[in-house]
Amino acid sequence: MVTSPVVNMYPLSNYTFGTKEPKMEKDTSVADRLARMKVNYMKEGMRMSAEAILLVQEHNHPHILLLQIGNTFCKLPGGRLKPGENEIEGLKRKLSSKLGANSPSFQQNWQIGECVAVWWRPNFETIMYPYCPPHITKPKECKKLFLVHLPEREYFAVPRNLKLLAVPLFELYDNVTRYGPVISTIPQQLSRFQFSMVSS
Amino acid sequence: MVTSPVVNMYPLSNYTFGTKEPKMEKDTSVADRLARMKVNYMKEGMRMSAEAILLVQEHNHPHILLLQIGNTFCKLPGGRLKPGENEIEGLKRKLSSKLGANSPSFQQNWQIGECVAVWWRPNFETIMYPYCPPHITKPKECKKLFLVHLPEREYFAVPRNLKLLAVPLFELYDNVTRYGPVISTIPQQLSRFQFSMVSS
Repeated sequence: MVTSPVVNMYPLSNYTFGTKEPKMEKDTSVADRLARMKVNYMKEGMRMSAEAILLVQEHNHPHILLLQIGNTFCKLPGGRLKPGENEIEGLKRKLSSKLGANSPSFQQNWQIGECVAVWWRPNFETIMYPYCPPHITKPKECKKLFLVHLPEREYFAVPRNLKLLAVPLFELYDNVTRYGPVISTIPQQLSRFQFSMVSS
Repeated sequence: MVTSPVVNMYPLSNYTFGTKEPKMEKDTSVADRLARMKVNYMKEGMRMSAEAILLVQEHNHPHILLLQIGNTFCKLPGGRLKPGENEIEGLKRKLSSKLGANSPSFQQNWQIGECVAVWWRPNFETIMYPYCPPHITKPKECKKLFLVHLPEREYFAVPRNLKLLAVPLFELYDNVTRYGPVISTIPQQLSRFQFSMVSS
């Protein structure tokens, strides 16, 4: 009746990593980003975005794959959906763009799983909340986080300007300063799952 | 395929509240509590506990029912399960003990829903984590939080030494100082649900 879903998790060493052409950020500052958000909102309404939680294990502890830009800022792979785009299809498109091999003979079949969190941006500001705050009738963005079930082995092509890091849950937990409110509370959102650690 | 579960939420004013005999805390200090935990661990092994998230709405915003002890400490209704007890049955027993009417003609039929979080206590200390930390082979407690789906109307009998508060998500969010790590991140754990606000 109330059983926790089981998530298989394979060793980091099962996965291989290559590089591909850089994927530059569209904006060079937070102010630019919020300004572009505003322009897009006028044209298309609320921004919908989807991000992926890709899990691997090391030493029997879950690790999340994060993309690092420069030396500090980390983000989940994913991004903005097109207006009207299905969120699952959109997330698959974003994952292929961010981490997929360019070769058409090597297409990933991303398996998008459970939605684990939804975040709302009430204003054209950086702050987001895990609920739509009272009195906000026109939120500016709705961001959904999905668990992505990785196959036992996979090849990832990482844009040359980014680094892909496997960060353990114990490093993310309670570390809002380093990872921000969305990523630092992923351990809580994953706690309901049963992790099955599969050896290589 | 990936649809968020819908949770009906009724106005706080749909519910009625009475009082009953006090339910005193078993321990008068944190040190006593941890000492008793240790004694029980020796006898029964890892402590299993289950707590309930009871949701109501006010002004179309979700509120969680918390039990307040004295003027500061808040907790979710629930508690320790008996050794070998089924967690759903155990949580029902705890809810009836904490909030149920004493009258046998007025038995609540608690509807225990989704597990939303699991917390681990690695040592006989107050600190808990939303994962079992690496190298901990014998955690001392495993605490599960469940969503409880309330009926449209219900009567709660609150022990005379406790207060039952309806606390809005926006008050809990990011308020670890006041509510602790377990309760203050409930908003994130609930964000994946679609709330259906039903009027009275």
